[in-house]
Amino acid sequence: MTYCVAVKLDAGMVFASDSRSNAGVDQIATVRKMAVFERAGQRVVTLLWAGNLAVTQAVLDLLERWSRAEGDRSLWNVPAMDEAAGLVGEALREVQTRDGPYLMQSNVDSSASFIVGGQIAGEGPRLFQVYAQGNYVEASEDVPYFQIGEHKYGRAIIDRAITRQSSLINAAKCVLVSFDYTLRSNISVGLPIDLLCYARDSLRAGLNRRIAESDPYFQMIHQQWGERLRRAVEDWPDPDWAADPALSAGGAGG
Amino acid sequence: MTYCVAVKLDAGMVFASDSRSNAGVDQIATVRKMAVFERAGQRVVTLLWAGNLAVTQAVLDLLERWSRAEGDRSLWNVPAMDEAAGLVGEALREVQTRDGPYLMQSNVDSSASFIVGGQIAGEGPRLFQVYAQGNYVEASEDVPYFQIGEHKYGRAIIDRAITRQSSLINAAKCVLVSFDYTLRSNISVGLPIDLLCYARDSLRAGLNRRIAESDPYFQMIHQQWGERLRRAVEDWPDPDWAADPALSAGGAGG
Repeated sequence: MTYCVAVKLDAGMVFASDSRSNAGVDQIATVRKMAVFERAGQRVVTLLWAGNLAVTQAVLDLLERWSRAEGDRSLWNVPAMDEAAGLVGEALREVQTRDGPYLMQSNVDSSASFIVGGQIAGEGPRLFQVYAQGNYVEASEDVPYFQIGEHKYGRAIIDRAITRQSSLINAAKCVLVSFDYTLRSNISVGLPIDLLCYARDSLRAGLNRRIAESDPYFQMIHQQWGERLRRAVEDWPDPDWAADPALSAGGAGG
Repeated sequence: MTYCVAVKLDAGMVFASDSRSNAGVDQIATVRKMAVFERAGQRVVTLLWAGNLAVTQAVLDLLERWSRAEGDRSLWNVPAMDEAAGLVGEALREVQTRDGPYLMQSNVDSSASFIVGGQIAGEGPRLFQVYAQGNYVEASEDVPYFQIGEHKYGRAIIDRAITRQSSLINAAKCVLVSFDYTLRSNISVGLPIDLLCYARDSLRAGLNRRIAESDPYFQMIHQQWGERLRRAVEDWPDPDWAADPALSAGGAGG
C-alpha cells in the first residue's frame, strides 16, 4: 500500500508521500514515491505515485528517457501542466501495454496511479490525478486535494481542516496529522515521509524535507495530537440531552 | 454499506449505527441496525449489524424465535455476555447454512457481522465483535472499541480522542464526529443515527436517541467541527522549518 496527498492552496501546494513498499508482510522495502522536475524560474513539476513498484519505476524511467531525447514528450518541455499529466498517463499506458499481459498471467496487480502537480511559467499552479488507465482529472475549487493509496483514514483532517485560504505551514501540519492517522491504522504505509511545500509563483521546488522516525516534530504529533483532539471534544458544547439522568453511572437503574 | 461503532469505557458503553440500506444507488431504504434486549435490573444486550440485509433480518428473527421458546438459546436467558455473542454467531451460521448456497448461486454477498455489547447482572460490561463466520472476539484494554462496515474514515477520532476514562457524553460526541466524517465521505452510509449510551451497572438501556437530519446538535457538528479542527491545527506549534524563506510566496523564487 501507499499513502500520498497533494493539496492546492491560494498560497501554493503541499505534496507528501510515504516510503513503504511491500510484497507480503515479510518483504518490506523503503522506496521514495516522489519525483520533482525543477528548472528554477521556469517550472516545478512534482509526481507522486502508488501501485505496482516495477510499473511505477518503469514509468519514471520512460519519462526520463523521453526527457533525454529533448523532444516534445518531455516534462522539461511541455508548455502546460495538463500536458505534463497527459505525458505521465501516456508513459503509464506504454508500460501497461508492454508489461501488463505478463503480470496478468500470474494474477499480479499491475495497476498504478499518479498525482501530478506544480506550476509552469505562464500559468498558475495546477494539480492532477492520473488514473490507472492513463486518463486524468484536475483538482477543482470544491475539492482542492487528491489522495492516492490508503486514503480513507487520513481524509477527514484534510477535508475538514484545510481550506484554499490555509497557509502552506498549516496545510503541511494537517498533512502530517493525516499521515500519523494512516500510519497508525495501516502497517503497509510507513515512514519516512517526503514532504514538499511549493510557494505559488516561486517556480522553485521550495521546502523539500524527508521526515524519518527520529523527527522530533513528527514524534510530537504522534504523541500529543490525540490529547489536543480530546480537549477539542471536551470543549465542544454538550448536547441538551447530556443532562439525562440515564447518563450517570447507576443513575436511572440505581 | 453501513457504519456501526461501539465503545467500552469505565463509565459504560456507547453504541451507534447508521440507517442506510442500498442495493445499488437507485434502491435506497432506511433500516434500523440496532436492537436492544433489556430486562431492567437484570440485563441490557445491544446488537449492531452490517452486511446483507435479508441475512441480518433472518438472524434477528431467529434470535427472537429462540427467545420465545424460553430455553437456553435465548438472549433473555444466557448468563454471560460471551454466551450472548456465541448465540448471535450460532444464529448467523444457521442462516448462512440455509440461505448462503442460494445467494452464492447468484453471486450475492451473503456476509454479515455483528457487534454485541452490554451487561448481564453478575458481571461487568463486555463488548464483542461477531465475524461473518460466526466466531467472535472481545474488546481489550488496548482497543476498547469495535467498528463494522465503512470504518476507515471515522476511525482516527475514535482511536485518538477516546480513552477508557472518557465520559459517556464525550465519547458520544466523538462518535457523532466520527459519523459526520463517514457520512461526508461515503454516500452508502446515511442518517438517521441510532445512539445508545449505557451507564455501567445501571442495567437499563439508558439514553437511546434517533438523530435525524433535522437534529440541531448534529447539524452544529456538521457545520462547525471543521472550523474547530482548523483552529486546533493553527494553534498547534509550528515546526522549526516554518521560517524557511522557501515557504513565503515568491520568497526564494522571487
